[in-house]
Order: sequence, then C-alpha cells, then structure tokens
Amino acid sequence: MKKIFFSTMIFFFLFIPLFAVHADDASSGDSDLMWITWVGSIAALVFAFILTLSILKKDAGNEKTKEISRHIQEGAIAYLKQQYKIVALFFIFLFILFLILSFGLKLLSPFVPFAFITGGFFSGLAGYIGMFVSTRSNARTAWAAKTSLNSGLRVAFSSGTVMGMVVVGLGLLDLSIWWLVLNLFKVPVEEIPPIMITFGMGASSMALFARLGGGIFTKAADVGADLVGKIEAGIPEDDPRNPATIADNVGDNVGDVAGMGADLYESYVGSIVATMALGAIASLRLPGISALQAIQIPVSIATIGVICSIIGTFLVHAKKDATQKVLLRALRSGVYFSTILIAALSFLLIRFTVGSEFLGIWGAMIVGLIAGNIIGYFTEYYTSEHYNPTKNLANESLTGPATIIIGGLSLGMSSTLIPVITVVIAILSAFSLSGGFAYPGLGLYGIGISAVGMLSTLGITLATDAYGPVADNAGGIAEMAGLDPEVRKRTDALDTLGNTTAATGKGFAIGSAALTALALLAEYGNKIKEAVEHLFADPSVSVVFENFYAGLIHIARDGGQTIQEISMKIDILDPRILIGLFLGGVLPFAFSAMSMRAVGRAAGDMVKEVRRQFKEKSGILKGTDRPDYAACVAISTKGAQREMVAPSLLAIMAPILIGILFGPFTVIALLAGSLASGFVMAIMMANSGGAWDNAKKYIERGAHGGKGSDAHKAAVVGDTVGDPFKDTSGPSINILLKLMAMVSIVFVPVCITLNNMIIQIFR
Amino acid sequence: MKKIFFSTMIFFFLFIPLFAVHADDASSGDSDLMWITWVGSIAALVFAFILTLSILKKDAGNEKTKEISRHIQEGAIAYLKQQYKIVALFFIFLFILFLILSFGLKLLSPFVPFAFITGGFFSGLAGYIGMFVSTRSNARTAWAAKTSLNSGLRVAFSSGTVMGMVVVGLGLLDLSIWWLVLNLFKVPVEEIPPIMITFGMGASSMALFARLGGGIFTKAADVGADLVGKIEAGIPEDDPRNPATIADNVGDNVGDVAGMGADLYESYVGSIVATMALGAIASLRLPGISALQAIQIPVSIATIGVICSIIGTFLVHAKKDATQKVLLRALRSGVYFSTILIAALSFLLIRFTVGSEFLGIWGAMIVGLIAGNIIGYFTEYYTSEHYNPTKNLANESLTGPATIIIGGLSLGMSSTLIPVITVVIAILSAFSLSGGFAYPGLGLYGIGISAVGMLSTLGITLATDAYGPVADNAGGIAEMAGLDPEVRKRTDALDTLGNTTAATGKGFAIGSAALTALALLAEYGNKIKEAVEHLFADPSVSVVFENFYAGLIHIARDGGQTIQEISMKIDILDPRILIGLFLGGVLPFAFSAMSMRAVGRAAGDMVKEVRRQFKEKSGILKGTDRPDYAACVAISTKGAQREMVAPSLLAIMAPILIGILFGPFTVIALLAGSLASGFVMAIMMANSGGAWDNAKKYIERGAHGGKGSDAHKAAVVGDTVGDPFKDTSGPSINILLKLMAMVSIVFVPVCITLNNMIIQIFR
Repeated sequence: MKKIFFSTMIFFFLFIPLFAVHADDASSGDSDLMWITWVGSIAALVFAFILTLSILKKDAGNEKTKEISRHIQEGAIAYLKQQYKIVALFFIFLFILFLILSFGLKLLSPFVPFAFITGGFFSGLAGYIGMFVSTRSNARTAWAAKTSLNSGLRVAFSSGTVMGMVVVGLGLLDLSIWWLVLNLFKVPVEEIPPIMITFGMGASSMALFARLGGGIFTKAADVGADLVGKIEAGIPEDDPRNPATIADNVGDNVGDVAGMGADLYESYVGSIVATMALGAIASLRLPGISALQAIQIPVSIATIGVICSIIGTFLVHAKKDATQKVLLRALRSGVYFSTILIAALSFLLIRFTVGSEFLGIWGAMIVGLIAGNIIGYFTEYYTSEHYNPTKNLANESLTGPATIIIGGLSLGMSSTLIPVITVVIAILSAFSLSGGFAYPGLGLYGIGISAVGMLSTLGITLATDAYGPVADNAGGIAEMAGLDPEVRKRTDALDTLGNTTAATGKGFAIGSAALTALALLAEYGNKIKEAVEHLFADPSVSVVFENFYAGLIHIARDGGQTIQEISMKIDILDPRILIGLFLGGVLPFAFSAMSMRAVGRAAGDMVKEVRRQFKEKSGILKGTDRPDYAACVAISTKGAQREMVAPSLLAIMAPILIGILFGPFTVIALLAGSLASGFVMAIMMANSGGAWDNAKKYIERGAHGGKGSDAHKAAVVGDTVGDPFKDTSGPSINILLKLMAMVSIVFVPVCITLNNMIIQIFR
Repeated sequence: MKKIFFSTMIFFFLFIPLFAVHADDASSGDSDLMWITWVGSIAALVFAFILTLSILKKDAGNEKTKEISRHIQEGAIAYLKQQYKIVALFFIFLFILFLILSFGLKLLSPFVPFAFITGGFFSGLAGYIGMFVSTRSNARTAWAAKTSLNSGLRVAFSSGTVMGMVVVGLGLLDLSIWWLVLNLFKVPVEEIPPIMITFGMGASSMALFARLGGGIFTKAADVGADLVGKIEAGIPEDDPRNPATIADNVGDNVGDVAGMGADLYESYVGSIVATMALGAIASLRLPGISALQAIQIPVSIATIGVICSIIGTFLVHAKKDATQKVLLRALRSGVYFSTILIAALSFLLIRFTVGSEFLGIWGAMIVGLIAGNIIGYFTEYYTSEHYNPTKNLANESLTGPATIIIGGLSLGMSSTLIPVITVVIAILSAFSLSGGFAYPGLGLYGIGISAVGMLSTLGITLATDAYGPVADNAGGIAEMAGLDPEVRKRTDALDTLGNTTAATGKGFAIGSAALTALALLAEYGNKIKEAVEHLFADPSVSVVFENFYAGLIHIARDGGQTIQEISMKIDILDPRILIGLFLGGVLPFAFSAMSMRAVGRAAGDMVKEVRRQFKEKSGILKGTDRPDYAACVAISTKGAQREMVAPSLLAIMAPILIGILFGPFTVIALLAGSLASGFVMAIMMANSGGAWDNAKKYIERGAHGGKGSDAHKAAVVGDTVGDPFKDTSGPSINILLKLMAMVSIVFVPVCITLNNMIIQIFR
C-alpha cells in the first residue's frame, strides 16, 4: 500500500510540468519550468532522508559489531578532517584568485567565485553524506544478513540508494539555487549556463581530490595492512590486531563511497551544465526553440530521471528466501523499469515542450541510454569471471605473475575497442539525429543530451553500484566480530552481486565522461569565439589576428572597425595545433604516473607505521594491547592529502599555461589530444584492474588450486597491480579530462587577454 | 695509413657535389645532384662489404663455438624461410591489388606496384644481411674476447657497422634506382617523391612484419626456454640440452638485428621520402628554391651523414688493455665527431645550393640532431642502472613483484613527459626556423628535415646499437662452449656498453618516428587537396562537397566549371573529426593488445614443444641425445608468422576503411589521434621495459641480495613483463604510426573515389 501511495504521489509531481506545458503555448517557449528542478531535488533528498532514518532504526548488532563500526566511523571522520583542511586551502586560494579576476580585473563574471565554491561544497557534501550513511549501514547489513540474504540486501541497497539520491538531489539543488539567484540578479537566461560551468569546475576539483585522495588512502592502507600484517607478522586478513585493518575498512568507504559520490556528482552536474550551455548557444541561431527551452530540456530529463529512479527502487525486493540469481533479477528489473519509464516520459516532455520537430533530441537521449548499457555490458563481459576473458586471465596465473600481468594488460587494452566504437557511433547518431548536419550547434547539444540521458538513471544505477562497498564492509565486520560463517557467505554473495551491477555503473561513468568532455570542448569553442568578439569590440585593439593564429581565426576589419568574419576552422597541420595534440596525449600518462607513484609512497609510510606499532607495543600481537587505529588512519590520510596536490595542480595548470603561451587553439588541441589518449587509458585501467580482481576471486573460490596455491599468489600480484589502476588512476582520468575542459572554459578571458599581450610583445 | 687513405678518398667524394654546386649557378637550381646518392650508397655498401670480409677472416674459435654458431645460423635461416613465405603472400596480394588499381582502374600511378615491392625487398634485405653478419660475428667476438676487451669490441662493432652501413646504403640505393628509372620515364621531378612514398610503404610493411615477427619469435623462445628448461627441468640458462636454447639465441638475431634493421631502414627511407615530397610541394609556392633543390637537400644531408659516419667509425678504437670506460668514450667520440662533421658540411651544402636565405633549413636539421640527443640522454637516464629511476625501481623489488610492476609502469609513464616536450619544442623550432610562419609549407618541410637530420648519423648510431646483440650472443656461446669465465665477463662488459649506446639509438628512433609521422601527415594533407582537385577537374562530377564535408572542404564551382577555393581548414568539433580522434587514440592500444597476446600464445606453443621433446627422447636431459633445435625454431617461427598477420592487417585496413566510410578528413583525425596516444605509449613501453631489464641486471650484479634472492625473483617478473613491451609492442607502434600514414597517402585516390560514391548514394 505504501508503495502505491508513493508511486501515485510521484507521478502526480511528475505530470504537473507536462500538464503545465501543454496548457501553455508550447511554441512561445517562455514558460519557466525551471521550478521542476526543485521538485526533483526535494523528492530525491526527502526520499534519501526517509531511507536514512529507516536504516538508522535497524539493529546494529552486538557490542563487537558496533565497536568495529564505530572505529570505521571515527576513521572516516579523521580522514575527512584532514582532507578538508587541504581542500579548503586550495579552494580559498582559487576563491581569492577568482575574486581578483572578477572584481579586480573584471575578466570574469562576479558570480564565478561563489559558483566555484558551491560546486565544491555540494560535491564534498554528497560524498560526506554517502559516507555517513554507508559507515552506519555496514554493521546493520551484517546483522540483517543473519536473517536472510534478502534482509542484508535491503539494508545495503537502502544505503546505496541514499547515496544515489543525495548525488542527484544535491546536483539539482545547486542548479535550482543558482537559477534562482541569477534570476534575482536579472542575469539574461543565455548567460546563466556559462556561470554554472564554474560550479561544475568546483565540483570537478573536489571530485578529483576525493578520487585521488580516497584512492591513495584506500590502496595505501590495503597494501600496508597486507605487507606487514599478513606477510611479516603472519596474522590473517581483517584481524583486529592489525593496526591498519581499520584504515583498510575506512578506505573502502573513503575511496569507493565518498570518492565515487563526489566523482558522480561531478559527472552528473557537468553533463547537465555543459548541455545547458550548448543549448543556450544553439537556440540563438535556431528558429522554434528558445534559450530557456533549450536550457530546460536537460534539467527536465534529469528530474524525470530522479523520479523514475525513486519508483525503480521500489521494484528492488524479493522473497525472504531469494537466491542470488533472483536478487540480481530484482536489481536489474528496477534499473530497466526506470530506464523505460524515463525514455517514455522524456518523449512526452520533448514532444509537448519543443514540439515534434525536435524529437531528434529525444533520439539523442535514447542513444545515450543505449550506449551506456552497451558499454556497461562489455565492461561486465571483460571483467566478470562468468565470461571468457577473465577466465582465460585466471588460467594465465598458472604460469606465474609475469603472464597474468601481461595477460591483464592486454585484456585491458583490447577491452577499449568496443567502448570507443560505441561512443563513436553514439556521437555520430546523437549529432545527426538532433539535426547537427543542418545546424552543427544543435548536433553538439544533442551530444550533450545523450550524456544527460546516459546519466538520467544515475539515481538508481548509483544505488546498485554504491551498495557493494557496504556489503564488502559488512563482510569485514562479520569476520572481525566472529559472526556465523553463514553471514560472511551471504555478504560475499551480496558483494559479488555488487560487482556485477557496479560494472554497468562504471560503463555509464566512462561513457558519459567522454560525451561530457566533448560537450565541454564544444562549449570551449563557443567561449573562444565570444571572447575574441569581445576583444575586437574594443576599437583600440588593432591586431589582425590572422597573422598570429595563422589559419586559425580569420578576422578582418572592414575599414578598421567592423569584424567581417570569425571562423573557427583549424589548420590541423599548424605546429601550434600539433604540439597541443602531443602535449594532450602525454598528460593522462604523466598524471597516472603521479597517482600510481603516490600510492606506492603512501603505502611505504603505512608499512613503517605498522612496523613501529608492533615494535613499540609488544602487547598488540598478543591481543593484550589495543593498536592505535587512528594513527594508521592519520598516516594514510596524510599521505593521501600530500600526494593528491601535484596531480591536481597538473590538471588545472596545464590548460591555463598552454592557453597563455600559445593561445586558445592550442588548448583545443590539448583537450582533444588528452581526450583521445585519456579516454582509452581510463577504460584500460578500469578493466585490467577489474579483471585481475575477479580473476583472483575466481581462484579463491576454488579454481586452479584455490587460496594459497601458486596460481593464487600470482593472481594476488595481478590484483595488487590492478588496485591503483581501477581505484585511483583510472577513475581520476575521467575527472581530469572534464576538469581540464572546465578550467579552460572558465579561464578563456584570462588566457585570451594574456596571450594577446604576449602576441603584442612579439610583434 | 689505411685510415688516412680512406678519409681522403671519402672527403674527395664528398666535396665533389659541393664544388659542382658552386661551379653551377646556385640560384638557377637546375643542377641535378641526385647522383650523389649513388656515391653515398656505394660508399656505404663497399665499406660494409670490406668490413664483412674482415670479420669472416677472423677465427671463429674451436669446434664447439663453431657448432653453436652454426646452429644459430641454421635457425636464423629457418626463420627467414618461413617468414618470407608469409610475407611473400602478403606482398603478392598487395602487388596484384596495386596492379588492378594502377592499370585496371587507373587510380594509382603505374610505378606504384613496383615501388611497393622494391621497398619491401630492400627493407628485408637490410635485415637479412645484418643477420647474416651478426650470426657469423657472435662466435668470432667470443673468441676475440679471449685476447682483450678491445679485440672483442672490434669484431662486434664491425658487425654493428655492417648493419648500419647496409641500412643506409640500401636506403640510398633504392632512392637512386628509382630516381634513375623515373627520370628515364620522364616523370616530372615534383611527381617523383609521392611515388617514392610507396616504397616507404613497402619498407614499413616489411618492417612491421620483421619487428612483430622477430619480437614474437624471440620472446616466445625466451619464455619457453625459461619456463620448461629452467623451472621444470632445472637445467641452467643457455644449457645446450635445452631444445629452445638455440631458438632463444636465434631470437636475439631475429628480433634485435633483423627486426631492428628492417625497422630503421623504414625510418630512414620514410623520413627522406616524406621530406622530399613536402619539399616538392613547398617549392611550388616559393620563390628562390626549385623542386629539384628541395628534393635534393634531404638526400644530400643523408649522403653527407653516410660519409661522416664512415669516418666516425675509424675513431672507435682503443688500446688493447682499454677499460670499459675508455671504450665507451671511444664509441661516443666516434658518434660526436660524425655529428659535428655532418652539421658543418650540411651548413656548406645548404649555404651553397639554395643560398643563405634558406639557412633556416639547416637550423631545422640541427634542431633534429639536438632533439635526438636529448631524447637519447633521457632514455638512458630513465633506463640505466647508473641513474636514480632504475635504482629506485630495483628497490621496489624488495617488496615483491607487484610493487616493481607498479613502479615500472609509472616510471615508463612519467618518462614520456620529457621526450614529448622535446619533440614539441623541436616541432615549433624547426617550423619557425625554416620560415613556416610565413610559408607553412616550408615549415612542414623543415619538420621533415629535422627528422632527416636526426637520422643522418644513423650509419654510426646504428653501429653502436646493433653490436649489442652480437656481444649478447657471444656471451651465450662462451657460456655454452665452456670458455674461460673471463671471456663471459668481457662479453658482458661489451653488452652493458651496448645497452648504454642502444638507449641513445632508441631515442633517435622514437624522436624521428614522431617527426616523420608528422611529415607524412602533412604530405597526406597535400595529397587530399590534389585528389579533390583532380576529382573536380572532371566536369561530370557535380557534387558540391561543402554539404557533405561540412566545414571541411570549401569548394564552390564558379558557373559549374571552375573551382573557386579549396580550403584545408578543419572544424575540430565536427563529429567526423571527433570520431577520427577517438578511433585513432584507441588503435595503438588495440594493436599492442594483439601483439602482447601473440607473445603469450606463441610462448605457450613453445612450452608444449619443449615438454614433448623431453618426454619423447629421455636421452636429451642426460646429454646422450641431441635435442631437435630446428623443431623449436620452427615452432617459434610458425607462431610468430601466424600472430603477426592480424595486427599488420589492422594497421593497413583501418585508414583505408575509415577513409572510404567517412572520407579523408576523418583519416587525418585518425592519424593525429593515433600519433597523440601511440607516440606516448611507444616511449612508455620502451622505457618501462628497459628499466625492468636493467633493474634485474643491477640486482644480478649483487644489489639487494643478487641472483636467487626474492628481490631477484620479483625483478625477473618485471623483466618478463617488459620483454614484449620493449621488444615487440613498443617498437612496432612506431612503425604502425608511419605505416598508417603511408597507407593513407597511397590510397588517397581510392578512398576519395569510393567515399564520393558513398556520398552520391546517400544524397
């Protein structure tokens, strides 16, 4: 009954906008429907709040499970404290810089500094809330799993759903607030989206810190715990005597929950704001669609997505004695139902707001949804032990660590082909369906819409993704607290389920990153044009750009006053374009090198700390002294924070410096080059890492001699190499690509002005 | 005395052209100096012949060393027989295809099929001769090393010099012959270079087969010999009872000598023909330089390089009791002397042929020489045990195989930054020095010239590079034949020396690959323009391209007859450009995945064969039965040949298919994207592999517990992973990039015509 009530309420909310539109004159296009983002945002946040209360009501188990869970909570808080210190410094520095650029030099809009801060704040908040709930759900999941697999799933899935809802809810909330504020300040509609990209940049910066920091933290703790605890001291995994154990479990929350939350917040918001911006520009040259309408379509799709995701979560339930297979079907039916509902409602939305002549935009959105599913399927195919690639990889472990490493690397490399081809087909289809071959601007908007479409199901796909770490933690707690082995078996089953659904989630994240980065690249092109027009509007500027950006910008002053033509065509053989491509190609490699080495160094610190504790307090190993868990958490945190700064600076400084030195067209080539190499590398790292992980688990379940065999040892080597691949470097590259594009966009006026000064000097 | 005689003779030869030019009117530019390529070619080949005779005169040692050497020779021949069967099929197939396209459909020049064949033939011949000499020098080097380090060096270095001279000599010979033939057929001067690019394509195809095949062969034999011989049967390395031992030693010759020879032949010829082609085009729009002059400059620089390399080799000598350090100084002084001499003589060449206004071209050449040295230095820095990166990597072995793998991957990734920045600066400098900002065509020619400059010292740098595998083989023979351990020590010292100089050689190969690929990309741009002009010259073709290549080619018919404008500007945000970039970015990954997996599969076959022999003939392990070496060689060969076809087809088919489906501009983006990701990946793979190799050797010399320690075992894992990186996939990527560009160039008319048909259908 409760479900039916909820569903009815939600449908009611959802159809208000559609009815409102229909009542209005659709073609006049002036009805401000942006209030529906409030509906989506509040619905998601209220739903998340109700779910959180219901989780907190559950029994957290006995003293032991409660204590372990508390340690993990404390560790997570300790991590956040340290992380926020560094991040705050970074944000304050950039905030002041933005203040100077906006109010002092008048190069940026006065809203930019504040938009930047809110993006970072909400991204961090999404991660924080997700972590708050997941660290409180772990013991409860373990305890619920005592009853049945289904009970365990309900708690863990609720926790994942909170995460999903918080991410989309806060995303829409930030959009809603800024829409309101900028309207109050009477900013013209078409100027709003570019300001919003600044909060995308804030969100991306925070996401990069969270992913890098979280990834370094969790892998340092993991490696440290294993090397000293398991190998040197000879105590089993997840043993409470190991000072790094808690840090290890904290890491799951810090990396896989908080990091992923901030990351997907950034993806979600990034795709929406980039598409809004492209829509605003496209509408200027198109009859039949207003800027407001073009801006509303992506947020409306997102809102529909939120509501349908909420409805979808109600379908995820099963009988008490349900098997793993039944549960997987339940999870999938929730996602599929939401997807179909979103597709149907979006059709109505577009049909009744901008009319049937723009239904191609709906087509672009469907392309995104399908492409996300294809990439997700092949992510699973390449990394799941149920398919040949990972099974063959497990076979490679029979001839030792070298062959499994070579096998995993080549698996990851070959797994890049299908996602890239899928994205390529998606780009072409989204562009042409939405009418890009007649109006290129509309085609680029269509590419953005397909990214929004791909992420429209985020509320529920993230739920199926984020419950995995909770189940993982629950298993650790069950082990440490000495619960019935049956409980551990059940949490393991949940974890495996989580791996399968997480693969799909990763596919969506990767695919949308490529499309969003493209949309941002397109928006960057628009910004350059705007900035050059602005520069030339000043009659005292007399440079004829053509001489300097040879073949890049064709500008001629008619009688020294009017601008005749600004052409955005690029001579791909101009050396300034070529060097941009080369530098762009190398950036993801340099970035990954930094983040991988960071994991190594932080792990080294952890090894020293654990050794120190064992040496100074001999009672720890005997079980009479309590190890100093917080010290290990602090070490891992400190290491993570120290190491995450350099790669982040690389991402932010590279486009600015190149832009100032060589001008905006080299930056376009830089972004294109980094996209060409980074996108592929991100897929490779994610899939190599995932396959090694699952090959190891496959062997642990008994294949090739099981735990302790030589094959297993080889597989552990593969898994350890894969850890920084899949949890640190790989996902960070996706953020890197988008962050670089956003930085380029935000700093366009600065780069153009300074680059013009350099050109004047060299004349 | 002999030296002085030689030097005088050579200087005499060398100055003829300069005097001839000076006598002529330099500005008229019609003096055909192309005959000097005959001088360079014959000088190199005669010198190689004399050296070969002197090597064959040396004592090949006792019965044992002779026998082992003979086995290696037989194995190498067995390999070649098999390889040429497959390659011949491939070449015949393409030859027939070219015949149809040239004579049947009149789409290509009638010389294309024959040029293609000669390129492949000479590339293969260079590898064959190099291998012929190296397999005859190995035992002789071992025997000479009995006397002193210096005597060993002299034999090995002579063998390397033969290789260097054969590569440059045959390169210039092919150029000379075709110049003669095409002049006989009265082909206009400016149409000659594009035909010559076809023999570049032949050479590249052969090089790709040789590198892939050789790389797969040697690594399969290596892994197979180790896994069954060392680990399962427990016999030491290089033990004659191991059936795969000979295959292992054959592999060194097949991969590191024949493969490298074909590879560098391709680089050398590729850079020259690409630059000739760019020169011919550039001269059309430039006053003061004729097509003939522009074509002659790169070949003259190459010829000067050959002569100076010959002179340089005479400086490589030392006293009988010279230490390793003194020998390194001797090697280096030879290279440096040649470099300086080339720089000085090229100055005179350019000053007195095209005049001082074009001295910027000389600047571009110097840029190439310097850039090559910088990249070479940093290749050594990152991969030599004398510097911190590899020392730190060796430290990582203390915590097991996982950390040394992570460390090696991140070392390789971070080592890409400096080479890329060096190439970027070289591109900008070469372009601007040669006047590209006024005449872009001249700037692109300058980029080509810098590649030619970088490779002008190839005669001697390849000598210092190619003697390494000979020393390596000599060590193996010394071990197998039970020579005095002092001999092994000396050959090891030579091998180490070789590693150091080989690092520099690799730097030149990598840097020149990037620059040559760029030059080819530029030439591709020229060819498209030409093909479109040709297409439009046919008045029956009425398509206005603008509608289809939106924003790509601006063509308008004036009154339906004249072409108003062909603009080569590209809209980087056009989806057809974006998909080209993405597909280009993924190609090197897909290609590497294939070649790495190929090594794994071929190694598996070898394991089975060795096991079979041990099982069927129990006398082998007792030393009473002779193992069937040839069977192992055949297995490795067969595996190599089977596995090298698919990646090669990928390289050739990708640009053709994309060109037919999406048109030539998508191909430009494809080439640019693959260059952006492939160049970086090639450096990473080469340096990761090199560092792992040297970290292992560093440990074997006693660090971290030496041979047999856990650290050593971990380092062996790193080395095994690095093997396909540095000897199969990495160097093949360099060839891949150039081959794809050459295929695109050669197939331009085919792609444009078929793509136009598709466009007509979809209208």
